[in-house]
Amino acid sequence: MVEAKVSARLDASSPVREADAPRDSLVARFGPDKPLRLDAGVDLAPFQIAFKTYGTLNAARSNAVLICHALTGDQHVASVHPVTGKPGWWETLVGPGRPIDTERYFVICSNVIGGCLGTTGPSSTNAQTGLPWGLEFPVITIRDMVRAQAMLLDHLGIESLFAVAGGSMGGMQVLEWAASFPQRVFAALPIACSTRHSAQNIAFHEVGRQAVMADPEWSGGRYLTEGTNPRRGLAVARMGAHITYLSDAALHRKFGRKFQDRSNPTFSFDADFEVESYLRHQGSSFVERFDANSYLYLTRAMDYFDIAADHQGVLANAFKNTPTRFCVVSFTSDWLFPTSESRAIVHALNAAGGRVSFAEIKTDKGHDAFLLDEPELFAIVRGFLDSAGKARGLVRA
Amino acid sequence: MVEAKVSARLDASSPVREADAPRDSLVARFGPDKPLRLDAGVDLAPFQIAFKTYGTLNAARSNAVLICHALTGDQHVASVHPVTGKPGWWETLVGPGRPIDTERYFVICSNVIGGCLGTTGPSSTNAQTGLPWGLEFPVITIRDMVRAQAMLLDHLGIESLFAVAGGSMGGMQVLEWAASFPQRVFAALPIACSTRHSAQNIAFHEVGRQAVMADPEWSGGRYLTEGTNPRRGLAVARMGAHITYLSDAALHRKFGRKFQDRSNPTFSFDADFEVESYLRHQGSSFVERFDANSYLYLTRAMDYFDIAADHQGVLANAFKNTPTRFCVVSFTSDWLFPTSESRAIVHALNAAGGRVSFAEIKTDKGHDAFLLDEPELFAIVRGFLDSAGKARGLVRA
Repeated sequence: MVEAKVSARLDASSPVREADAPRDSLVARFGPDKPLRLDAGVDLAPFQIAFKTYGTLNAARSNAVLICHALTGDQHVASVHPVTGKPGWWETLVGPGRPIDTERYFVICSNVIGGCLGTTGPSSTNAQTGLPWGLEFPVITIRDMVRAQAMLLDHLGIESLFAVAGGSMGGMQVLEWAASFPQRVFAALPIACSTRHSAQNIAFHEVGRQAVMADPEWSGGRYLTEGTNPRRGLAVARMGAHITYLSDAALHRKFGRKFQDRSNPTFSFDADFEVESYLRHQGSSFVERFDANSYLYLTRAMDYFDIAADHQGVLANAFKNTPTRFCVVSFTSDWLFPTSESRAIVHALNAAGGRVSFAEIKTDKGHDAFLLDEPELFAIVRGFLDSAGKARGLVRA
Repeated sequence: MVEAKVSARLDASSPVREADAPRDSLVARFGPDKPLRLDAGVDLAPFQIAFKTYGTLNAARSNAVLICHALTGDQHVASVHPVTGKPGWWETLVGPGRPIDTERYFVICSNVIGGCLGTTGPSSTNAQTGLPWGLEFPVITIRDMVRAQAMLLDHLGIESLFAVAGGSMGGMQVLEWAASFPQRVFAALPIACSTRHSAQNIAFHEVGRQAVMADPEWSGGRYLTEGTNPRRGLAVARMGAHITYLSDAALHRKFGRKFQDRSNPTFSFDADFEVESYLRHQGSSFVERFDANSYLYLTRAMDYFDIAADHQGVLANAFKNTPTRFCVVSFTSDWLFPTSESRAIVHALNAAGGRVSFAEIKTDKGHDAFLLDEPELFAIVRGFLDSAGKARGLVRA
């Protein structure tokens, strides 16, 4: 039985509290009778899903759009983040009059399984022990995230999504949605992603995990119980990852070799260069809003992701006779999920007899372009959804 | 007064001991009367330089080739490393009958200032305190490294180098040699390098430094005195850096998504993937042979490197009317020092009226290609030195 309610605003601003009692979110709770079957071969129960909705579900229940968030994203796609106080992470794209128009569509965004903003994850309280899960939490996959989202839709009484959209890890979920539940996805928008994580991407993730686990305050994953905080390790992980979200050209354009508040080098290990100062800020601000163990679990889920491997090694098998219409988007300067990965998706969809359009957007902003002000992306998303909406029989309000 | 001798082989295998008493190396010691003037505005004295030589200096003293090593390299370019027992790091290129032929040339390779294999650096004993320098060691630059090498040559009685060669940070030193001492360099071979470190490269270095400094066992840089060891932080730094030395394609070819000694994922944080296991090994083996503070100092030196900035912002000014003949080499898959950086060197040399040839070698091996089995590189180096040798009047032995 699901119970959806707006949680009370808590005074405690710790992200740990968000894990159990997320502020400004709806929460769906699933009891022991509704376990989440995990790829690891175990059942997770009880568990909860924290989510946000924007707009109104129409009478036909045909205008629901699911947004899937990226590695360090959350359900606050178009509303203020309760910890940082910052605007939603995709307000450029989602909102009234935006390409994903909340005046037309009923937008749902849920925190992923393994996350730390209210959906059950390693920083949530394990009902059986009364302690945070820590590393006792089972290792989850992208497919597990999608299965949990499907359970959320079941409980919201939404049989079929008009669209599912997301970038990066969110795009992986979009692809998994289309592969696992083709009848439930009318239109799919996977952006800046791939159907499997590359060796280089696994390598970068492993460095991040090792940075977290090298911090003595990680305490074997029991830092919440032991009162320690692996903030230094997590900050290093974030700094390294952040470089991969940008591009050589963007870093050169934004920072070059400019000094920070000085005209000459200090001959020290201070943050002489602006780019150093910027990265340090990225690291230190991240640890205020994110859980270190969630970082381990979600990077692991991305590393394990390999749709073809789940379908006899043939990617096209995953999308055989798919009824879904796809719009695949990549960015020229994205070296984490380069255009070649998106082309592989398109080729597989073609081979599977799918309906797909593809756009490569020219930008120097790197992988993070999907989160930034990219008018070409906005136009593509708007056009694709308009066209799909007509096919779906959605009437403009 | 310099004193060059082969140090006694020590029983202690700790790299710390190498810092003061390097095994299997020659050592040139410079007293208080011979300080090294540093860009930071201070004098370093006393100090010492550990070096190796191969081959024989001819009567005209005209066949000396200086090899400059990269960030984590050392003087053991073509002979067994005293700590790891592994072959010299450039034995593919340097040795009897090799492209840099020790039967023709007198090859010199010295550990850089700031290093940890016998040239004075942060792990060396500070004569004034009797303790390791630690962060009291002054921050050094690529130009400081070159000035120290010039002092070594003075004391060896070598006025002019037939050639100076190196890759990566070694290539930076080659360029600085040509800029600082044009009359002392007959031929220069800068490989896989640039005349200034890019914002992205500074960013990667900063992550590495933060990883080291985040390790509580770094102890504010006093780990040698306090008996701690920042091996975890340094290993994370090395893992991250190592990715940048390879390429997406090489990682895909070598590892792909292959599992390590298993056929299915373990749903854990073990090193399931071969690439994870490989990276962990890179990290743990590195810390056995390298000093954490040296890592900070040498990355900093690379970050500060900007030849144009030292010459009124105009790169060509650094090489005005240069008498040196250059051979610039880059690798197609090197994304740390991409070909565009080498082209900038070539354009500056052209503008300066220099004599330069340029080769971009096609390989998927990334930046590390300069250290690997690359027959095209070998042929280019051999051909360039043969031709320069004729111009220099070197007669084949």
